[in-house]
Amino acid sequence: MANHYTAAPQAYHFPLIIKQLLNRSKVTSQHQEIVYADKMRMTYNELFSRIAKLANVLEGLNLDKGDVVAVMDWDSHRFLESYFAIPMSQYVLQTVNVRLSPDKVLYTINHAKPKVLLLNSEFAPMVKDYQFENSSIEHIIWLDDNGVSSEGVFGVNQSRLLGEYEALLADASDEFEFQDFDENTIATTFYTSGTTGNPKGVFFSHRQLVLHALAEAATLGVLPQKQGLVLGDVYMPITPMFHVLAWGFPYTATMIGLKQVYPGRYAPDALIKLIKEEKVTITHCVPTILQMLLKQAESEGYTFNGLKMVVGGSSLTEGLAKTSLASGIEVYTGYGMSETAPLIGLTEFRADDPEMSIDEDAKRRSLTGKPVMMVDAKIWDGECKAMPQDGKQTGELVLRAPWLTQSYFKNADAGEELWQGGYMHTQDIAYMTEDGTLKITDRLKDVIKSGGEWISSLEIETILSLHPAVADVAVIGVKDEKWGERPLAAIVLKPNCQDVSIEDIKAIAEKAAEKGMIPKYGVPEYYKIVDDLPKTSVGKHDKKLMREQFTGQTSI
Amino acid sequence: MANHYTAAPQAYHFPLIIKQLLNRSKVTSQHQEIVYADKMRMTYNELFSRIAKLANVLEGLNLDKGDVVAVMDWDSHRFLESYFAIPMSQYVLQTVNVRLSPDKVLYTINHAKPKVLLLNSEFAPMVKDYQFENSSIEHIIWLDDNGVSSEGVFGVNQSRLLGEYEALLADASDEFEFQDFDENTIATTFYTSGTTGNPKGVFFSHRQLVLHALAEAATLGVLPQKQGLVLGDVYMPITPMFHVLAWGFPYTATMIGLKQVYPGRYAPDALIKLIKEEKVTITHCVPTILQMLLKQAESEGYTFNGLKMVVGGSSLTEGLAKTSLASGIEVYTGYGMSETAPLIGLTEFRADDPEMSIDEDAKRRSLTGKPVMMVDAKIWDGECKAMPQDGKQTGELVLRAPWLTQSYFKNADAGEELWQGGYMHTQDIAYMTEDGTLKITDRLKDVIKSGGEWISSLEIETILSLHPAVADVAVIGVKDEKWGERPLAAIVLKPNCQDVSIEDIKAIAEKAAEKGMIPKYGVPEYYKIVDDLPKTSVGKHDKKLMREQFTGQTSI
Repeated sequence: MANHYTAAPQAYHFPLIIKQLLNRSKVTSQHQEIVYADKMRMTYNELFSRIAKLANVLEGLNLDKGDVVAVMDWDSHRFLESYFAIPMSQYVLQTVNVRLSPDKVLYTINHAKPKVLLLNSEFAPMVKDYQFENSSIEHIIWLDDNGVSSEGVFGVNQSRLLGEYEALLADASDEFEFQDFDENTIATTFYTSGTTGNPKGVFFSHRQLVLHALAEAATLGVLPQKQGLVLGDVYMPITPMFHVLAWGFPYTATMIGLKQVYPGRYAPDALIKLIKEEKVTITHCVPTILQMLLKQAESEGYTFNGLKMVVGGSSLTEGLAKTSLASGIEVYTGYGMSETAPLIGLTEFRADDPEMSIDEDAKRRSLTGKPVMMVDAKIWDGECKAMPQDGKQTGELVLRAPWLTQSYFKNADAGEELWQGGYMHTQDIAYMTEDGTLKITDRLKDVIKSGGEWISSLEIETILSLHPAVADVAVIGVKDEKWGERPLAAIVLKPNCQDVSIEDIKAIAEKAAEKGMIPKYGVPEYYKIVDDLPKTSVGKHDKKLMREQFTGQTSI
Repeated sequence: MANHYTAAPQAYHFPLIIKQLLNRSKVTSQHQEIVYADKMRMTYNELFSRIAKLANVLEGLNLDKGDVVAVMDWDSHRFLESYFAIPMSQYVLQTVNVRLSPDKVLYTINHAKPKVLLLNSEFAPMVKDYQFENSSIEHIIWLDDNGVSSEGVFGVNQSRLLGEYEALLADASDEFEFQDFDENTIATTFYTSGTTGNPKGVFFSHRQLVLHALAEAATLGVLPQKQGLVLGDVYMPITPMFHVLAWGFPYTATMIGLKQVYPGRYAPDALIKLIKEEKVTITHCVPTILQMLLKQAESEGYTFNGLKMVVGGSSLTEGLAKTSLASGIEVYTGYGMSETAPLIGLTEFRADDPEMSIDEDAKRRSLTGKPVMMVDAKIWDGECKAMPQDGKQTGELVLRAPWLTQSYFKNADAGEELWQGGYMHTQDIAYMTEDGTLKITDRLKDVIKSGGEWISSLEIETILSLHPAVADVAVIGVKDEKWGERPLAAIVLKPNCQDVSIEDIKAIAEKAAEKGMIPKYGVPEYYKIVDDLPKTSVGKHDKKLMREQFTGQTSI
């Protein structure tokens, strides 16, 4: 029977490739604006021409399909053009995370092996001593907003310099016939920095990014107007374009045809100026940046006029949600990670939401949200068995979605581990309530496995942090012959509380256990008073290092 | 390079198949309601069980993958279950258009060759004398809301009767492991009735329907809350589920997890009762049904409380848009056809829309709208060359989208014509304005080709209809040796205006030509006063028949 359904010879099968994201805006949004900080403004029509021009510049380099083209830039119109022109030409866009240490940045370049590097002059010092002659990089395109010339930066490698971006585009034709090709072609790659070890490369195909854009538009679109995406919105990223593709929003915004604002390097005063002057209505950022924005706004006496903001990366606390709401920001949580392209969960708002108090409202905004369209999210116990949606039982959050990295780049072992059992392992411990709301309770590697039970280190930390003498606390598991692991609390005392006893601190955990807030076996056995706790480069507790430091030091 | 991007052995490639549409609602919407008129209510959890039960019933029949399962039913929960269970089991769902003449209905069944027929007792008379012994149908499942038994209906064919739907489901297990398979597997087929000739079968794959659902959610989602899709909406179709899959909304609504109401057979009073009592907020229908609803509401003194309604099928006039707005309906235009699954164009509303008068507002709602997400829409001249977006020059609207039928079922010639030049031919004549708004001006077959120029029959009809004596008018092209074709106006006069002269009517066209509203060569040469105009089964002017009737009768 199936063979009767034969496609007509000239029927178009419609590959899900990035150029298709332009179909709608090419006819609906030709005069819509794209703004680069206070430096440049252009229309979508100019964007389309400039994408063609960049493609022509790249075509002149005789690259092979599948070659990597790396970009080191702040958020700019150039980066947006690269998001399209590079993958649409069948090259792989590497968005280089310039926030890593210079060593790690160079590691990611040496690992991905780009043939072309688009380099913002501000990052030239980072690669000045780079051994170009031993590297894959054959061509450098110079990006500059400050009148800094490339002379002298590259020394003997000057010959690799193709020219300055704007000059190259000015000379290029604005006609380019973008071909169709297999939608499973890899479009982008970038590196995710674990707390230790070398960064791992994730990669996404055209199909995956197109489906992510559609699902992002659908999921944010069906939120009420106050929180969701709506035609007429003005979009600006405040999560960098090198970081998980600015959460896919540049693709989504271009597909819809929204006005877009790219802010360059993030400076709180400049960001607020752009939000004000360009009438930005929707953005996304991490809690640290949000705090900077709130501080700056306070100093200026500015309140955000209903700015919609998705917060992710680390958890939005209820306190921060409340402060943001008070400052006029419609803040809520997005959940995802580099491996997930990233959107997986989002706070849900409904047209028929009941009235709620500011506390209830702040709370729901700080939860991990509900799975977005098409996402298959499960909570697994240690044996890949699904846990009930009871809002209590925790396990590892595992995922299927149309846009998850299929492995790690040149790291098959890590990829195999990522996909053990046919679902992608987030390494996040979570529970799910009956209405599908996720709550991340811990990182898998930070969970303490004691006597066959799992103890959430975050839960115990929250309890201990309530003690008036505790300035900072981290709970880790240490080896125990009988139980496998037992919790150890590493505690920094407040300066004026140095004489508090460990028994006194332990008492608060015991009380919480009595009241059923934590399990009895969650009361830490071991305590360690320290001057400070080791932190990772992104400011999180470095528990891996602590586990090494405190091994064998398990006396109370 | 590309070969480094190797998927992990257990990585899930995520086929775009219909079962994935349930991923989100399976965790977020378990207790959400689905209502069947005043007959039945259930939760999504029950829907999921019943889909599994129906799959088990079908599995017992030893069908082959790709076999067709046909449904003849009004809009019901059963139809919704069929939308999922049949394609998810790798059978092809045929939605039988029961509004066709019995002959045509049987033609579509004999052409698609279903092995199973789900038959609502109300349609039993239609198939009573059907020659089952010479047909593909091996099994009949009886659907009934009225206590009508199947006894006596089938005579000697009684043995084909498998049983009554609810009884079969009650006995079936609610566990079914739906497999993954190729996303290009055909999921549904139905027939589009041309004005003459036999109906043609279109068909859609799982991938196409999933992408349509995502794009429909995204496009309607990003409209402002007043017009667009929002969480909390209550959905009810008023375009039948056998007609272009109720415009894909049952899939979209289930993916999002909305409350859904299925109204059974359409009766204006029952529809309004459901809208009122179930708090329906979003629907879609054709102008004829809208007029029925408005009449009924007027008689009840009811005003629709901001009900959102997409109108398609035939064009929403400005007058009807105004009346609907006055009755509290947020009405606007959707454009599509059976071949396009169907959504292609939609009226655009923006959060930053300027204030507009009721006339301006009604006008934009009655235009064909802008292309929806991912759609590549072009206006082609006769040589497959794109026309400019100038709001003036017309040509044929041609399309690429991820969800267009790839041919006609067992009708390769028609399929080849449909896809001539690599774009799907809509046979609609249109222009596009600079902001991407489409305006359909005519059907290609109704265009009059005179001296190398195209004359829009609709435009001339609009002008002639302004004459106070004209009750109805159709303009067609008749053969002309010199010009190729010249327009003929067939006119029905109002009862009290039978003595008006043809010159008098012609004068209004000449005046319009003088003012530049229509081209000079658009003034009809030939006029025919008739008692009434032949209509097709869906109430449109049957111009094909008129062209036959009036050939050689071209005296004034």
